Amino acid sequence: MMQKFCLPIRVYVEDTDAGGIVYYANYLKYIERARTELIRTFGFDKPALFGSLQFVVHSVSIKYLQSAVLDDEIIATAEIIRVTKTSFMVAQSVLRNNELLIDAEVKVVCISHDKKTPCAIPINMLKKLQGGIVNIKRASS
Amino acid sequence: MMQKFCLPIRVYVEDTDAGGIVYYANYLKYIERARTELIRTFGFDKPALFGSLQFVVHSVSIKYLQSAVLDDEIIATAEIIRVTKTSFMVAQSVLRNNELLIDAEVKVVCISHDKKTPCAIPINMLKKLQGGIVNIKRASS
Amino acid sequence: MMQKFCLPIRVYVEDTDAGGIVYYANYLKYIERARTELIRTFGFDKPALFGSLQFVVHSVSIKYLQSAVLDDEIIATAEIIRVTKTSFMVAQSVLRNNELLIDAEVKVVCISHDKKTPCAIPINMLKKLQGGIVNIKRASS
Amino acid sequence: MMQKFCLPIRVYVEDTDAGGIVYYANYLKYIERARTELIRTFGFDKPALFGSLQFVVHSVSIKYLQSAVLDDEIIATAEIIRVTKTSFMVAQSVLRNNELLIDAEVKVVCISHDKKTPCAIPINMLKKLQGGIVNIKRASS
Repeated sequence: MMQKFCLPIRVYVEDTDAGGIVYYANYLKYIERARTELIRTFGFDKPALFGSLQFVVHSVSIKYLQSAVLDDEIIATAEIIRVTKTSFMVAQSVLRNNELLIDAEVKVVCISHDKKTPCAIPINMLKKLQGGIVNIKRASS
Repeated sequence: MMQKFCLPIRVYVEDTDAGGIVYYANYLKYIERARTELIRTFGFDKPALFGSLQFVVHSVSIKYLQSAVLDDEIIATAEIIRVTKTSFMVAQSVLRNNELLIDAEVKVVCISHDKKTPCAIPINMLKKLQGGIVNIKRASS
Repeated sequence: MMQKFCLPIRVYVEDTDAGGIVYYANYLKYIERARTELIRTFGFDKPALFGSLQFVVHSVSIKYLQSAVLDDEIIATAEIIRVTKTSFMVAQSVLRNNELLIDAEVKVVCISHDKKTPCAIPINMLKKLQGGIVNIKRASS
Repeated sequence: MMQKFCLPIRVYVEDTDAGGIVYYANYLKYIERARTELIRTFGFDKPALFGSLQFVVHSVSIKYLQSAVLDDEIIATAEIIRVTKTSFMVAQSVLRNNELLIDAEVKVVCISHDKKTPCAIPINMLKKLQGGIVNIKRASS
């Protein structure tokens, strides 16, 4: 079964704002780090760029439940929940201990570097992405 | 009639990433600038902080349609579309000329600075927020 | 005479940190915006990239005297104080009203995009950069 | 002997710019992470805030020698080289393998949270900071 990928992160001053909490846009940095490291576990060393292809974020839906603060040790998670020929959907969260801070879904699409139009995800990567889904389904059945 | 609030923004190197485009989290900075300036037009000089109250983002839904690039002149827009006693919803976008780059909805809630629980929006601000809605309805009827 | 170039900037939540002040790295963003706009006044529309050349920062020396805070209206300045065939030095500051917040010197070098080695600054730009210096000298004599 | 403190860091998309390299201001984030973790090794859990005191950066001098790029594994270092009653100086660098990318000196001052004037560093922290210096001197003699 594919595990939910977990990346430990420390909150530094750079991440916070004058409200004394992590700035709302910075959670998008945290969850991208988790996506990147998840894809690195698939054996892709340069996750963001594949020759003539590029993976870009198509949409994000994020709920802010609790705030992380300076010096917190948090966990950013990434779990692939849907895969198409040209895109995949990632369920993501940020946790402090077992408390859910934010909850998000991110759709990533594969586009050509030149024309910026949707492209087929390379087959070796597609298999890795689909592998996660199939196993999750089996595990939950 | 309340106009859709428009804030001109220049894209600088700080905003871009190695993909040659504006980094996806940075659009959340752009649209917050537009929300802040919209609220400033209501006569609130320190939009983020009102004594014991604080306005925090509850949720964001954002679609990335086209990418802004270095040196672009873009417009971030903000339009209040729903108001409750403790929250308001803002429709937002980023445009380059007349091309829609991103499209978003942001829910902002009023919380107490101490207890971090939802609080009634101060009445003078609530009226300003509601004024926008009423006028939009009239304008579109 | 070449004026000290001045760029008005508003401080937003994105710029601040949990100390309630502008995060120290963000002043480097402010002063780069001023350098960029100064070079744009020379008639260069894409200041950071010139075909096969690239302008990169070689060194920064910065003193933090006072802190900018949320919602401040500040001014970032840029003034070219020395030019060589491959580099130029910019005196920079950030001011709030007439109060000096930071004071910096930034050395920018022209490198080839491919080899990352120092390159001659294109002659049309070199003249513009030198023009500023000459005029300043005249003005102060 | 006090070791030069070393913090491993991964370069993510958030750190890069359209030039394909790490944005110059972001090295200030990396070296602050190293300073923070160094002070945490002294037993201070909330390095940035000590009740009524605050540590702020007084000045930075930084040289950019080589650029880090996306997905690099780099090391940020911090070494205390001078301590006074109200301030300390940190020699810092960022390395990729054994290659020096940036070299910096950062002066940090202790100020009162209220009055923003220089304050004596708390004695328990001062001893830790001085401990590093003394030992370095011994080691190099």
